[in-house]
Amino acid sequence: MEHEVLGKLRTAMRNAGHDALVAFSQDNVTYTAGFLVPSHASNRFRRTITVIAADAFAAQIVVNVEENLARQRSRFSDIRSYNQFTQDPADVLADVLTEAGADRGRIAIELDYMPAQDYIRLRERLPGATLVPCRELYFDTRMIKTEEEIAVLTEVGRLTDRVVGEVLRGIRPGMTEKAVAQLIGNLMLEGGCDGLKCQVGSGVRSGITNCTPTDKPIDPGDVIRVEILGDMKQYRSNVTRTAVLGEPTSEQRRIWDVMIGSREACKALLKPGTAVADLWRTYSKYLVNRGIEPTLKFLGHGIGQTIHEEPYITDSRNVVLAPNITCTMEPLYMMPGRMGFHVEDMYRITPTGFEAITGTITPNDQLIRVG
Amino acid sequence: MEHEVLGKLRTAMRNAGHDALVAFSQDNVTYTAGFLVPSHASNRFRRTITVIAADAFAAQIVVNVEENLARQRSRFSDIRSYNQFTQDPADVLADVLTEAGADRGRIAIELDYMPAQDYIRLRERLPGATLVPCRELYFDTRMIKTEEEIAVLTEVGRLTDRVVGEVLRGIRPGMTEKAVAQLIGNLMLEGGCDGLKCQVGSGVRSGITNCTPTDKPIDPGDVIRVEILGDMKQYRSNVTRTAVLGEPTSEQRRIWDVMIGSREACKALLKPGTAVADLWRTYSKYLVNRGIEPTLKFLGHGIGQTIHEEPYITDSRNVVLAPNITCTMEPLYMMPGRMGFHVEDMYRITPTGFEAITGTITPNDQLIRVG
Repeated sequence: MEHEVLGKLRTAMRNAGHDALVAFSQDNVTYTAGFLVPSHASNRFRRTITVIAADAFAAQIVVNVEENLARQRSRFSDIRSYNQFTQDPADVLADVLTEAGADRGRIAIELDYMPAQDYIRLRERLPGATLVPCRELYFDTRMIKTEEEIAVLTEVGRLTDRVVGEVLRGIRPGMTEKAVAQLIGNLMLEGGCDGLKCQVGSGVRSGITNCTPTDKPIDPGDVIRVEILGDMKQYRSNVTRTAVLGEPTSEQRRIWDVMIGSREACKALLKPGTAVADLWRTYSKYLVNRGIEPTLKFLGHGIGQTIHEEPYITDSRNVVLAPNITCTMEPLYMMPGRMGFHVEDMYRITPTGFEAITGTITPNDQLIRVG
Repeated sequence: MEHEVLGKLRTAMRNAGHDALVAFSQDNVTYTAGFLVPSHASNRFRRTITVIAADAFAAQIVVNVEENLARQRSRFSDIRSYNQFTQDPADVLADVLTEAGADRGRIAIELDYMPAQDYIRLRERLPGATLVPCRELYFDTRMIKTEEEIAVLTEVGRLTDRVVGEVLRGIRPGMTEKAVAQLIGNLMLEGGCDGLKCQVGSGVRSGITNCTPTDKPIDPGDVIRVEILGDMKQYRSNVTRTAVLGEPTSEQRRIWDVMIGSREACKALLKPGTAVADLWRTYSKYLVNRGIEPTLKFLGHGIGQTIHEEPYITDSRNVVLAPNITCTMEPLYMMPGRMGFHVEDMYRITPTGFEAITGTITPNDQLIRVG
């Protein structure tokens, strides 16, 4: 029985009239094979390729030093390997496509990722084949998550939701941004993450969108913006909270009410059938009507194997929400040189609405008071 | 005055008879521009490209959201940007090459990295140009480090050398591999690293080459192998130490003497004029003559912006050592299911020999005794 992900890709390939589907990029190969070939991430000269073709054909091509691991962990039972120094992986790919009967067919392949050198070689080897892009096919397939994917996203999301609250509650005056980041790192790794990134900005630094933590101590009155990006079994979390050390001012409370109000207005539309462009318009209109110009040109983004994936919630996207899309919404308002406000949570679209993956353990409906 | 790195690349380009030199990959673009464009690492749809061409032409192409940062931090004063959703960066590249007068010339470009889609578009736009690979040109240029690069490698190397010693000396029975890794992480980040990886293997797990730390407690009699890979300002360190919790056995001491003896034999050859293949043969012969089959097929590797770069010290490489090559040597012997031995340090080739970048703060001439 073929794995659900391979079945979904095979169906999409057939429906689009392709004879083969070939992935080269780390995200699409990892999605397809179900595991990350370590050197795919660390060594750009070691190509890793997946091939799905007619009938039940399915093979993965890896560098020989990764062959044993791939045999243990890949969803593909057919593993082909090449020697990095003496063989051209594009030749192995040409052989595999020929064996699969696709050498004169229509091959959907990652033209936006495969190196030009491999493209040139494949054209030489398979002059009768038609090579077409597969970017949209992978975007569309990956956008709808399987139950297995949702389980991992929920696990890493809930961990992140818990950690951000624990760490924020422990902040005391004089603690540095880096110390906050270090605590987050330790708790996320202890909780089972394989890696993470986090941003911590306090005081005027809370108004920097992508804010690397520094040795700045957190002072009374500072707005504190903490964003955590977790990584567990190749799936990501993305949760952001805004807090104040001490008592928020009335200006801070007023802005925060607009952030949360916009989010609640969008939650009411977060269900199958809603166009993401309508979500964006609802959000931006809510802010503009209250005198706030949205800092970013999107409200949120799909989340899965990559932090940012389809659907981006913005007016340039023609996507309608459907069950098992997972995405974030992140109302954000930066006041450079003064302070910044940002709340981000992860959601899953259900048949009738949505389920909050995060936000239940550490809500941020009010600015979090710390210290 | 053009930056030294740009001058070196321009000279290599001219000497090879190229009219332009174009980089696409994260490592070559970062090397050329002197800074990492953040989304180059995190978003594969945001191309970052550098172009060097005739006379004094030098330009960098970035996605529009990175334009301000590039103007602040790039070595290129000529920054061109594109909109990720409405413009094709390959068109911007074609325009830049035309403006530089290289549209009918010989363009050395990263065919082993640039996406096929960009190659197809560039061929359409510049039918009169000849596109040739530039892999070797970049390998050769990057192999010889500038003083600025050596200063960063020395800083991150010495930090790593100090941290590995501090952490090993603090190991007590029952401490887990993960706790060791966490201490290393904290000290490296406190010391100024931007990131790091580390491997910790104890007992039979010391015999696993790439060993992710686990909850296994370190027991008396365990061999402990610790490898640290630091990351500071886009340059890397790579230092490995082997220790024993308690008193080493005579077998362990005997094997270690072979590791260190092989390293000393190679140090005697570590100077300009030595072929790396001769270093490899000296090493492997030293081991085999003492009954040990080398576990890896190389003795070490160049180190700079990437952990593994040219020159690999192995018999398939036709490289002769020259001043300001930086590399590691890492005698290693894995006995799967029993234990493993590994010592790795960083060296810089000088006009008359070498300088040890690491190994002076925490030497490993004897197995390090801990506990």
